[in-house]
Amino acid sequence: MTSLLQSTIERIGPLDREMMAQARARQDTLTKPRGSLGRLEDLSVQVAGITGQLIPPMDHKAVLVMAGDHGVAREGVSAYPAEVTPQMVLNFLRGGAAINVLARQVGARVVVVDVGVAFDFEPSPGLLNYKVAHGTQNLAAGPAMTREQAIQSIEAGIRAVQHEMAHGLHLVATGDMGIGNTTPSSAITAAITGRPVAAVTGRGTGLSDEQLAAKVGVIERALAVNRPDPADPLDVLSKVGGFEIGGIAGVILGAAAHRLPVIIDGFISGAGALIAAGLCPRAADYMIAAHNSVEVGHRAILSHLAVEPIFDLNMRLGEGTGAALAMNVVEAAVRILKEMATFASAGVSDRA
Amino acid sequence: MTSLLQSTIERIGPLDREMMAQARARQDTLTKPRGSLGRLEDLSVQVAGITGQLIPPMDHKAVLVMAGDHGVAREGVSAYPAEVTPQMVLNFLRGGAAINVLARQVGARVVVVDVGVAFDFEPSPGLLNYKVAHGTQNLAAGPAMTREQAIQSIEAGIRAVQHEMAHGLHLVATGDMGIGNTTPSSAITAAITGRPVAAVTGRGTGLSDEQLAAKVGVIERALAVNRPDPADPLDVLSKVGGFEIGGIAGVILGAAAHRLPVIIDGFISGAGALIAAGLCPRAADYMIAAHNSVEVGHRAILSHLAVEPIFDLNMRLGEGTGAALAMNVVEAAVRILKEMATFASAGVSDRA
Repeated sequence: MTSLLQSTIERIGPLDREMMAQARARQDTLTKPRGSLGRLEDLSVQVAGITGQLIPPMDHKAVLVMAGDHGVAREGVSAYPAEVTPQMVLNFLRGGAAINVLARQVGARVVVVDVGVAFDFEPSPGLLNYKVAHGTQNLAAGPAMTREQAIQSIEAGIRAVQHEMAHGLHLVATGDMGIGNTTPSSAITAAITGRPVAAVTGRGTGLSDEQLAAKVGVIERALAVNRPDPADPLDVLSKVGGFEIGGIAGVILGAAAHRLPVIIDGFISGAGALIAAGLCPRAADYMIAAHNSVEVGHRAILSHLAVEPIFDLNMRLGEGTGAALAMNVVEAAVRILKEMATFASAGVSDRA
Repeated sequence: MTSLLQSTIERIGPLDREMMAQARARQDTLTKPRGSLGRLEDLSVQVAGITGQLIPPMDHKAVLVMAGDHGVAREGVSAYPAEVTPQMVLNFLRGGAAINVLARQVGARVVVVDVGVAFDFEPSPGLLNYKVAHGTQNLAAGPAMTREQAIQSIEAGIRAVQHEMAHGLHLVATGDMGIGNTTPSSAITAAITGRPVAAVTGRGTGLSDEQLAAKVGVIERALAVNRPDPADPLDVLSKVGGFEIGGIAGVILGAAAHRLPVIIDGFISGAGALIAAGLCPRAADYMIAAHNSVEVGHRAILSHLAVEPIFDLNMRLGEGTGAALAMNVVEAAVRILKEMATFASAGVSDRA
């Protein structure tokens, strides 16, 4: 491992248990039956443990959308052509995509990180160029990338977090763009959780039954050809992953190293989370799962990571859309701790 | 029935199917795989049908918190003393309760409606005085209120909607405050859905096993003494209901009559929704269920109304807290339709 990845992992400490106990104790003084805000209370406690602050600021929120292309797209695993990856990046930069709308709704900024799109963008505000290569190799025929490139892609995510911290950053959401990227995500999920490929492979942007069967075949071939080692996350990422998936793993590790809560979007982000937690199990404590994706493999990921999603809204778009929506819930949780009156301050009688 | 309730019910029309078809068609032109935003797409279509507008404004949002006291509180059915109802109303008016914090988070105002609190408040901005009486009678011993009072309580909710429309109102959330009010809510749920009392009665603000068993006994006694007619919602409300529950039914009917989407909070609001849908089945089309409450009877209500909640966050506070959080999701759904680029406008290739 090179220095940035290694030093980032070494920097990830345990949650601040003392601050979590303080947050729980404060929740119990607020004018409501104890525990009655359910997950909101738990989230406020987790965020206190992550940040080491009872009431951390939540002013600066960013969705980091990691983008990359996939050699495997030529196997016909997506309903959309590969040219849609750069087209959608341009849509993000102009503010017209779903993630832009939802980020505006929750007061977050969108930052697009080119980790490996097969297109050269003009420099643009809101775009970070950390390109590792112009798309991965076809993982059905051999490794998607070299081990060195896998590390570079993770470091792109770490660098993106560090870059954004300079502009103020209190809450991070992961997002993705990459035509074909449910295929490496299913491959990673199968490799790391040990579940059968067919049980963790879905229709992505909208495959027919026949196309889905072909996609399962492509992933089974990829695993047979590459034989990724489940105990070595860099081996899994390099053989059957994607640049933006490595980038997502880096965002998670970078956020954890800097004690920032990181909201994990759906299936692609979940694959990145598997890589991050494989490299540093403690990183899972810094994750907040946004939602239950329609993609069938997502449940296997959530269960492997032992995290519980906030919503189930039948979404399957990616881009960070579920994570952006969840930002409002996380911010609400912190705000409860900050702004609610206590039984004593409000003159409300507590239970007998 | 008196004139306001009757005229309100008569005014509730069907959803605007033409506008729903337009909303669905527009969703399908936006730069995302069709259907990939799941519930968000469905919500935008429902809101278009409710309002009769493809993209209705969402600037003015209000949580209407209906407050009342309960004669049955003297049976020891709550973990908190009855004096907490007025204390919490004052907390709402000072902005220190959970509902105030969550309403601020989603940009909504909180309006408290005194439908029947056993305390006389000073006039205050943010408080509407539509008091029917100083609390209900003990429903375990006889009717909670007269049939005339039941109608008055519903009309209080209708009047609250009309009052707030003068200040601008695009999205309504229901909320409640009333120590003891899970007891009438369980009684209404058992009466209308036909389920056994024990299956729809929970711990409210935090009863022990023994207290829960006693609460079930109180509700069974109330149903035996009063014999409410499930086919007559006013009979059910007057015999085993509460003033704020009638008020919630009125908010729902008033919102539907004025083609406003109304987000239904948890269990108490659900009991009000049962009354509203009993009086006017079409009113259910205007409801958006916010969340799955911890209170066991809530699931029976959602199933009876055939509505699907947006979240399950393990909440059981009431006040409108779940509905307030859900406002952000509903607003996001409308914003998607308003602000997202189309495949044509963004120059993004559609699927083959």
